[in-house]
Amino acid sequence: MALAISYGDIEAAHRRLQGVAHRTPVMRSQTVDALTGAQVFFKCENLQRMGAFKFRGAYNALAQLAPEQKQRGVCAFSSGNHAQGVALAAQLLGIDATLVMPQDSPAVKMAATRGYGAQVINYDRYTEDREAIAGQLARERGMTLIPPYDHADVMAGQGTAAQELFEETGPLDLLFVCLGGGGLISGCAVAARQLSPTCRVIGVEPEAGNDGQQSKRLGRIVRIDTPRTIADGAQTQALGQLTFPVIEALVADIVTVSDAELIEAMRFAAARMKMVVEPTGALAMAAALQAKVPVRGLRVGVIISGGNVDIAQLASYLA
Amino acid sequence: MALAISYGDIEAAHRRLQGVAHRTPVMRSQTVDALTGAQVFFKCENLQRMGAFKFRGAYNALAQLAPEQKQRGVCAFSSGNHAQGVALAAQLLGIDATLVMPQDSPAVKMAATRGYGAQVINYDRYTEDREAIAGQLARERGMTLIPPYDHADVMAGQGTAAQELFEETGPLDLLFVCLGGGGLISGCAVAARQLSPTCRVIGVEPEAGNDGQQSKRLGRIVRIDTPRTIADGAQTQALGQLTFPVIEALVADIVTVSDAELIEAMRFAAARMKMVVEPTGALAMAAALQAKVPVRGLRVGVIISGGNVDIAQLASYLA
Repeated sequence: MALAISYGDIEAAHRRLQGVAHRTPVMRSQTVDALTGAQVFFKCENLQRMGAFKFRGAYNALAQLAPEQKQRGVCAFSSGNHAQGVALAAQLLGIDATLVMPQDSPAVKMAATRGYGAQVINYDRYTEDREAIAGQLARERGMTLIPPYDHADVMAGQGTAAQELFEETGPLDLLFVCLGGGGLISGCAVAARQLSPTCRVIGVEPEAGNDGQQSKRLGRIVRIDTPRTIADGAQTQALGQLTFPVIEALVADIVTVSDAELIEAMRFAAARMKMVVEPTGALAMAAALQAKVPVRGLRVGVIISGGNVDIAQLASYLA
Repeated sequence: MALAISYGDIEAAHRRLQGVAHRTPVMRSQTVDALTGAQVFFKCENLQRMGAFKFRGAYNALAQLAPEQKQRGVCAFSSGNHAQGVALAAQLLGIDATLVMPQDSPAVKMAATRGYGAQVINYDRYTEDREAIAGQLARERGMTLIPPYDHADVMAGQGTAAQELFEETGPLDLLFVCLGGGGLISGCAVAARQLSPTCRVIGVEPEAGNDGQQSKRLGRIVRIDTPRTIADGAQTQALGQLTFPVIEALVADIVTVSDAELIEAMRFAAARMKMVVEPTGALAMAAALQAKVPVRGLRVGVIISGGNVDIAQLASYLA
């Protein structure tokens, strides 16, 4: 079966995002290199517009809507960053947006989503089905539903993060990428296949929610209960129908990190790299720092996926 | 009287720093632009090697030492970031370094300085004279004293931060730069005169330590008691003999911000820009956010000078 996206889709997304998304910096840290014995390159999507890579995919999807779809508006369900990405992209493109967000989403994410002019509708992530709520809204109001990951345009947009990274670093031996539903990692894996064919792409999940790891190892999509982890962006229950085949074909392995390891990575990022990284954003970084697969002597890419964490929450992690 | 440095010195420093110092990113924030009505460009020296601009000046000075000076080693006195800058530059150049640091310097700065292989000697900043201590060390051991700001090579090195900013932004209307002893702002003012002649360079000091403002307004160097402010990098008592004439000639005005305004700016940087900024590093940012001089409608540069703050201290500011 053909994969949902090709490298050409990522190139096209990159052209659409030119001058709209930030080309985020690729950072090095002498301390990280000394600690790991590797050369580590951090792609800092926490410094992306609205604070996460999600803007890339959302904008790439919204920009391609037909005029009548743009006029009727869009809706999306999201634990936070996809909501903000859709809200900002909609604002930039003059499209109405309605977002279905868990009521326990970080307040900073909900406030930012509203700040971009979107309407926010809350639900209980442990008892209600966000897909059903958003689907009903879409049907009733004629809005186009923008899925958070299982959508070719979203996946292609996210892949531009890795494309930019490889453009700056050249080929790498390893690339650590977090996953929830798999939109980012599937886009990045397609970019890696083209730009650094021998690079092993490693997925990173929270220990409490290792559905991706199980799925990859069993060769079928495994669905789990909503995991309880501080990595709120990776509290998905299953990979997507479009993302899983890409992960199966192009991702070398999926590893997990604990919440304690996430906090350690967030503290390291603040103390040594002067950056705010959200728990989900620290997944790939934690895996590299903990050498969940051997990194010594290798050229290693790490996607820091986002930085949207409540300031009070961040303070508690750093205290 | 001729100023201590010319633009040619900054260009030469920039060549020395090529491939050694990071070319730090220039960041934008839609939120900042909306709040201020200006176009604001942040030069992120908190993302510089060792976490502050100070590496630029230290390396530029150490790289130009004679072979016999390099062999005898260097010493410096510093509230923190200059110490780290000298320590890292010395490590890279294979020079022994001894640093005289206040005993109440942030632990992270002392640990990092030792981490770069330097020897650290503590003193009490409220009762002892660091210049005398360092001077004595230099005489006894034949080491070369690297002053934190009042040194042409140090000033020229710091000016490369503004040079890089202007190279990316083109001319600006305003440039906010923090000052303690005036090394950074004097280098930046010389760069501005060349690259953006109509740009007004605005110095920013802590309210509790406005010796620079007094000096600028009175036309002579005013010395004050060591100010008590969270901006530990700006706890200097007076401008330098070399920096003051540059500030007098090329800086348009000096404004002050309170510790509360610094904390507000640090919180904003963490929440909206995903960056850790130390109190001193937030001086220029706070002045721009508070529009200490009118910024509406203008193109405004802000030098974020550093990000070295104890994590526990940062947590208390964010809580």
